[in-house]
Amino acid sequence: MSHNAPNAVSATAARAAMAAGHLTAVAYLEACLERIAASEGAVRAFAAIDIPAARRAAEAADRAGRPGLLGGIPVGVKDVIETSGLMTGHGSPIWAGWRPRADASAVALTRAAGGYVMGKTVTTEFATRHPGATANPWNIGHTPGGSSQGSAAGVAAGFFPVAFGTQTAGSILRPAAYCGVTGYKPSYGTIHRAGMKVMSENLDTIGAIGRGLADCALLVTAASGRAELPPGAATSAPRIRVTPGPAEAMLCDATRALLAEVAARLSAAGAQVADAILPAAVLAGAEAQPTVMYGEIAQALAWEAANASAQISPGLRANIATGAALPPGGLDAARARMVAAQAAFLDWMGDADLVLTAAAPGEAPEGLGWTGDPACNALWTALHGPCVSLPAGFGPKGLPLSIQLVGKRGAEIAFLEAAQWVEARLG
Amino acid sequence: MSHNAPNAVSATAARAAMAAGHLTAVAYLEACLERIAASEGAVRAFAAIDIPAARRAAEAADRAGRPGLLGGIPVGVKDVIETSGLMTGHGSPIWAGWRPRADASAVALTRAAGGYVMGKTVTTEFATRHPGATANPWNIGHTPGGSSQGSAAGVAAGFFPVAFGTQTAGSILRPAAYCGVTGYKPSYGTIHRAGMKVMSENLDTIGAIGRGLADCALLVTAASGRAELPPGAATSAPRIRVTPGPAEAMLCDATRALLAEVAARLSAAGAQVADAILPAAVLAGAEAQPTVMYGEIAQALAWEAANASAQISPGLRANIATGAALPPGGLDAARARMVAAQAAFLDWMGDADLVLTAAAPGEAPEGLGWTGDPACNALWTALHGPCVSLPAGFGPKGLPLSIQLVGKRGAEIAFLEAAQWVEARLG
Repeated sequence: MSHNAPNAVSATAARAAMAAGHLTAVAYLEACLERIAASEGAVRAFAAIDIPAARRAAEAADRAGRPGLLGGIPVGVKDVIETSGLMTGHGSPIWAGWRPRADASAVALTRAAGGYVMGKTVTTEFATRHPGATANPWNIGHTPGGSSQGSAAGVAAGFFPVAFGTQTAGSILRPAAYCGVTGYKPSYGTIHRAGMKVMSENLDTIGAIGRGLADCALLVTAASGRAELPPGAATSAPRIRVTPGPAEAMLCDATRALLAEVAARLSAAGAQVADAILPAAVLAGAEAQPTVMYGEIAQALAWEAANASAQISPGLRANIATGAALPPGGLDAARARMVAAQAAFLDWMGDADLVLTAAAPGEAPEGLGWTGDPACNALWTALHGPCVSLPAGFGPKGLPLSIQLVGKRGAEIAFLEAAQWVEARLG
Repeated sequence: MSHNAPNAVSATAARAAMAAGHLTAVAYLEACLERIAASEGAVRAFAAIDIPAARRAAEAADRAGRPGLLGGIPVGVKDVIETSGLMTGHGSPIWAGWRPRADASAVALTRAAGGYVMGKTVTTEFATRHPGATANPWNIGHTPGGSSQGSAAGVAAGFFPVAFGTQTAGSILRPAAYCGVTGYKPSYGTIHRAGMKVMSENLDTIGAIGRGLADCALLVTAASGRAELPPGAATSAPRIRVTPGPAEAMLCDATRALLAEVAARLSAAGAQVADAILPAAVLAGAEAQPTVMYGEIAQALAWEAANASAQISPGLRANIATGAALPPGGLDAARARMVAAQAAFLDWMGDADLVLTAAAPGEAPEGLGWTGDPACNALWTALHGPCVSLPAGFGPKGLPLSIQLVGKRGAEIAFLEAAQWVEARLG
């Protein structure tokens, strides 16, 4: 896309341009629609789109003067989040064409803040592993990652500036990393999940994918019912612990080199950067995560498993069987181990601000049949604190590479300030 | 009802009678339907019922030999929990007549365990305060309590042996107490909420109302995907802390006398019983609970507030406005205070097994316009541990009085054993 096109700017910059009278919501939308017309055929980010409704919403926003945090901004909505005007299919033939009566909380609060729905974005099957049709805009022979694949690819392709994703293991950060855009999974519980097809009660977290952390924070702030934006970058340099993370053995050379390079750059910029080794008490969270995930998914999909088993992918059927076959107390014990790991992480972090680690093992894998491994993300999701992935370079195939930053639960604003300090030094 | 009628026995006893060949699922259902025909006109426990479907389910259960923990048992389902065959109205005109595509997780797991849906039971508006039409079967001039009013009244009237309720403040235990039946709110997170109209992410808990704790445990066990029943009553006497609770000033004389009498009886039976004073750090949970509740309800009902405000009751509109107007960080701070109170409670409990406290201020209030005060329950809901109410006597108007037992999160089986030890000594 032309870097002069209105939609080449972030939502934050578009809001500023609108406030200054240099941009209208309609002009911003039309630039997005041009990109959609040009490349949706190859990218396939949308599960559903209603262009006349989007035009009406943009026109209404302009007429109203674009009030609210998201006034005049189009938002992609992952298709496990209900929308009143568009079908919600959960990435499953079982739910194809289903029309919910209401918007999910996150969508209703987005509209209340002046934003509007650009379309439903493709998700893997129930936000688990079986992929949808979306391709990576950087190279359509490669996966965009999953499960929030349409949201990540759509931001990268310029279809909308920000979108909702959801994460149970690595479903926001991994596709964001593969598509070279920013992913933000806020602390567990930040955005209300009413109207989301929740799989794991103790893991599922709604978050944002966008062009930069300020845009992601904008959407998360509005969708969690907050009226005021968090401040920008911290003025003092953060204390950072560097670790390859629990998936060290999986990291490709380019990812290892990127981590070292970013650590050195941040240190040179004044951050206190120290290599760190994750203790077993924290790593126990990564062991517990799949048990909690599959035990709870088996319960979440009990109706589908009983009534439409043939329309569930073989892989998901197997994982449901695993979850349903947990011994009595097995799920409770895994939940307890996860809670213990959360406490151990806070102890281990002490006064550190951030963990710097890998966002994904490497570049997006070739082919659309496998969305890649969430092993760089699942531990941190289980720890319930905020996580972001920030584009930070390119791999040997010319595809994006990202770093991941992880923070402490209960310190969301300080985390965002520290993460934006880092982001400003990656450019 | 005749105490010889098949439905006068509990679900647990009915299961035993069915196993012994003395009872069929069809005979049990027909006895329930007789009670419904005789008194539903006065009690009004049902929001929806499909009698032919219930008959087909009972016949199918008999043909199949009634396998599963709930084989052949009819279950009432509170109308904020989705059912595939019956409408789900959430106690609100906004959702009247809505037909979900799927069963909620709890309902699908109930069916997978051999149970079937007797009907949808009346809830207050979105399980908050504005009452439905249900009357108290003990005296139809009195409220059955709320919000799970149809579930409690229906069990008391003999319409079904067990039913689902949900609790955000006191919505399972209070109506169970007012209707003279048993209420069980398991630890937060025990039953998956997929397909429930969740109001407060951090408080809402699905539980059971039934004829005795064994029946309630049966339903909760099945609905949380467990295959094995918890054991029965503990063989050793529990350690019990007695407190009037945070609503001491509200308790009527009969409730105070009941608490003292039950404490003395349990002590005489061998329990270690000691009066105890709740510390401020625990009571802080009661202060935080309404902020968390209304802050999260405002988010949960964002679509309804934006699109159908006129169909929301004035009281709920006011509470939504309160929740939506919380200052930035106010909701986060209340959540943090609630988590701190949970930790303080576990510290304070030490090696005690149970808290013995009031289940409600007194008998069910007169009239159907107000469902009574949840002040005896809201603290314990915020503490996330298991709670039960057990019928233990009668008040000056001849209406039931109950006690409440509260346990420690993470020790559900031990709690149920200790609570059943108490239950066996109340009869």
